[in-house]
Amino acid sequence: MAIIKQTLPLYQQVYQDILSRIQSAEWKSGDKLPSVRTLARERGIHRLTVLKAYQLLMNDDWVYVKDKSGYYVGSQRQYHFTDHSNPIVHSLVQKNHLSEIHQADVTFQFSKALIDPALLPNQFFSNYVKDIFDKYPKVLSTYAPLEGDFELCTYLAQFFHEKHTLPVNPEQILITSGAQQAIHLIAEAFISSKDVILMERPCYGAAMGAFRQQGASIIPVDIFQSGYDLSQIESYMKEYKPKLFYCNPTFHNPAGYTIPDEQRKQLVDLAKDYQCFIVEDDAFYDMYFDEEPPHPIYKYDTDGYVIYIRGFSKYIAPGLRIAAITCHPNIKKDLLSIRSLIDNGSPLLTQKIFLHYFQSERMRQHIEKLRIALQIRKETMEFELRKTSWKWVSPSGGFNLWVECPSSISIEKLLKECLDASISFVPGSVCDPKNEMNHYLRLSYSYNNEGQIHEGMKRLISIAEGMS
Amino acid sequence: MAIIKQTLPLYQQVYQDILSRIQSAEWKSGDKLPSVRTLARERGIHRLTVLKAYQLLMNDDWVYVKDKSGYYVGSQRQYHFTDHSNPIVHSLVQKNHLSEIHQADVTFQFSKALIDPALLPNQFFSNYVKDIFDKYPKVLSTYAPLEGDFELCTYLAQFFHEKHTLPVNPEQILITSGAQQAIHLIAEAFISSKDVILMERPCYGAAMGAFRQQGASIIPVDIFQSGYDLSQIESYMKEYKPKLFYCNPTFHNPAGYTIPDEQRKQLVDLAKDYQCFIVEDDAFYDMYFDEEPPHPIYKYDTDGYVIYIRGFSKYIAPGLRIAAITCHPNIKKDLLSIRSLIDNGSPLLTQKIFLHYFQSERMRQHIEKLRIALQIRKETMEFELRKTSWKWVSPSGGFNLWVECPSSISIEKLLKECLDASISFVPGSVCDPKNEMNHYLRLSYSYNNEGQIHEGMKRLISIAEGMS
Repeated sequence: MAIIKQTLPLYQQVYQDILSRIQSAEWKSGDKLPSVRTLARERGIHRLTVLKAYQLLMNDDWVYVKDKSGYYVGSQRQYHFTDHSNPIVHSLVQKNHLSEIHQADVTFQFSKALIDPALLPNQFFSNYVKDIFDKYPKVLSTYAPLEGDFELCTYLAQFFHEKHTLPVNPEQILITSGAQQAIHLIAEAFISSKDVILMERPCYGAAMGAFRQQGASIIPVDIFQSGYDLSQIESYMKEYKPKLFYCNPTFHNPAGYTIPDEQRKQLVDLAKDYQCFIVEDDAFYDMYFDEEPPHPIYKYDTDGYVIYIRGFSKYIAPGLRIAAITCHPNIKKDLLSIRSLIDNGSPLLTQKIFLHYFQSERMRQHIEKLRIALQIRKETMEFELRKTSWKWVSPSGGFNLWVECPSSISIEKLLKECLDASISFVPGSVCDPKNEMNHYLRLSYSYNNEGQIHEGMKRLISIAEGMS
Repeated sequence: MAIIKQTLPLYQQVYQDILSRIQSAEWKSGDKLPSVRTLARERGIHRLTVLKAYQLLMNDDWVYVKDKSGYYVGSQRQYHFTDHSNPIVHSLVQKNHLSEIHQADVTFQFSKALIDPALLPNQFFSNYVKDIFDKYPKVLSTYAPLEGDFELCTYLAQFFHEKHTLPVNPEQILITSGAQQAIHLIAEAFISSKDVILMERPCYGAAMGAFRQQGASIIPVDIFQSGYDLSQIESYMKEYKPKLFYCNPTFHNPAGYTIPDEQRKQLVDLAKDYQCFIVEDDAFYDMYFDEEPPHPIYKYDTDGYVIYIRGFSKYIAPGLRIAAITCHPNIKKDLLSIRSLIDNGSPLLTQKIFLHYFQSERMRQHIEKLRIALQIRKETMEFELRKTSWKWVSPSGGFNLWVECPSSISIEKLLKECLDASISFVPGSVCDPKNEMNHYLRLSYSYNNEGQIHEGMKRLISIAEGMS
């Protein structure tokens, strides 16, 4: 947060601190806020500065005044989408915007990093699920254990061991209903409103939301094609004592970069030295185009500082919503005690379907086909992009292109016009903890076929060029 | 909380306030606590009182001292199960205890309010799920909408309208992965650590946990066979301005009582007058033995003060984990913005399976058979209980008996010996916000067959009578 603060005038720092408490639900709708006098005294700043922050919060409908009795937190239903002048509100606007974008039913779907259902073995599944019921006749009558189906945890432990030579046993694995649930679970278990965390810049917007919801302040860590600036990370860990570093080191979302192997080991050493958890979100590992990426950071963890989230269902069967957290048994214990209050565990049926498909030869064939299909779609999108002056680094895996447009193009305006033209994408500012990166966009090539990608990109580009 | 406090000495109030902040994750493992001096000054109490509270917290492994630098929050992993002298820790011990009880693999399963899988239409399901895949070939490749499958929401809106003449439209319905997720979602969306809520006494332990996790202080509301004492509720609403009242008015868990129709309407009027949400958890509605219970409280809601949680999967197919929240569209909006950070929605497959089974004639037949089977099991358990002097009110629906034992019996000791004898039940204190009710136990008759119930109850009773 301090990092962000340096870029903000004093009244905006106050604005942000109050806003982050509201967003973290520390202060809820209807709560009375401290008086201008109190806040000014507490912070040793001028009352007019506090007043200015409160006025800004009122303009943005975060705060209202009740007759003469003071300032109150407004209803979250009053979010509006007009004021883009303030970076913090802007981020929130974008956040809401994003779910709107995802909900928009468009022909050219470049916003969702989702697999085209046509690329998934639907027919195979429908013939095959029946076998699950023959194998587990009571699968719909039974709750799975809180931590996940034991057969599945056991198989995944083996899988991690064979695939990455990770010394994992089933007691270290926790099954979640998708990676987002894993992120939220970790945030709710470990983050309180005084905590600072590290996140990459750019980063995965929904993860930012989950940590902010628990009250975390975010320090952005730059990610480059070559990896991290480890001295930057170390200095942040030293100065701000972050609780954790949420990272996405393999086919990074949105940037597409992959952190080199040597940095992975060094990162674990830093985590250990500064007692900062690393939350490694690994959603695209198997979606490489040429060679396999390096092993997960988790591989280098010897002292329980790395919490590894491996998403599978994204490219196998999104409808199953299956991810696995692998971590130290003590951490798992903490996560389970929260999980028991959150949803009592994932459905047994989806875990069993996943397990048996994941074990099958059919699945290996599917993944290989999928890699080729995705690579072709990526190249199709790049083919159209090459007709522009826009910049991007061609990723060697994953679902997304992270594209920088000329500053003459307003991404907000482009998004609006694209949605009208039934084209969607993710504006870069959504992926930036500092809520800048206003000239970037994330384009997912995983959902539409080549014909649609050609057509959609042609249209998107002509709209953009009409603007500049 | 104030209510609880009256029963506690000063140092225990301090103990509880600190503990509730730890339990609500406002203060997390490793956080530094205020000094004895500061706390004493803040509260205008004697330092020795604070010191006593801190010592108690240290005994219970909640807090530790770092050399001379002060008091710190201990790791939650350090919970232990020995000190039963303190009511607050006791409640926590019980909470953990409970998940242990549920995990215990016993022959006579009287602790879980779950349907015996043998009573569920497993064979039917396995033949039938294949049809789902024929009907929705891409069901495993597709994410359901965040709020739930539209077809399911539409059907449930119709269902509520026909069944309860509730004026519900699909835009008011939100599908969750089971009722526990619904409770947690509401707690995370609306509760902050300064909030006070009302809960029945006794109440559903896991709901208590979910609200406490968000930092709620609980005021217990008595529930009687005749219903609530509405003047008690009004005085609490007036004095403590609770954010919500979580209640379980139909075949109450654990007490089995049902709130009469006239009180349901009056309760909504109170909610409106004092702007207190009512969270109505309705998990057992269809599990009546003689006549249908009164319509949900939600029926009387005209201004959006009631949030209605209807659980279905419990007695249809626990493995599906399907519940529905019905509420004002503005409340749903707030819930959705949190849900998008929690897990991005429930699997489409389980929603489609549920929908088509729920619509089927087969399901109606199943429910009727189930009611009879449950009634027989209840009577079987009561047959054995009648051989004792223990007291209970025979419920007209639901899965549980709430039994009062003579004070000569230590329920904790009974539980221990029962678990050794492969019998489980829920100790009453787990269901009490004040963590008393030490002479009650909750016995579920839904999971074992009559033979097992006869045998298990005979053993349980003889163990108990051996103690008194």
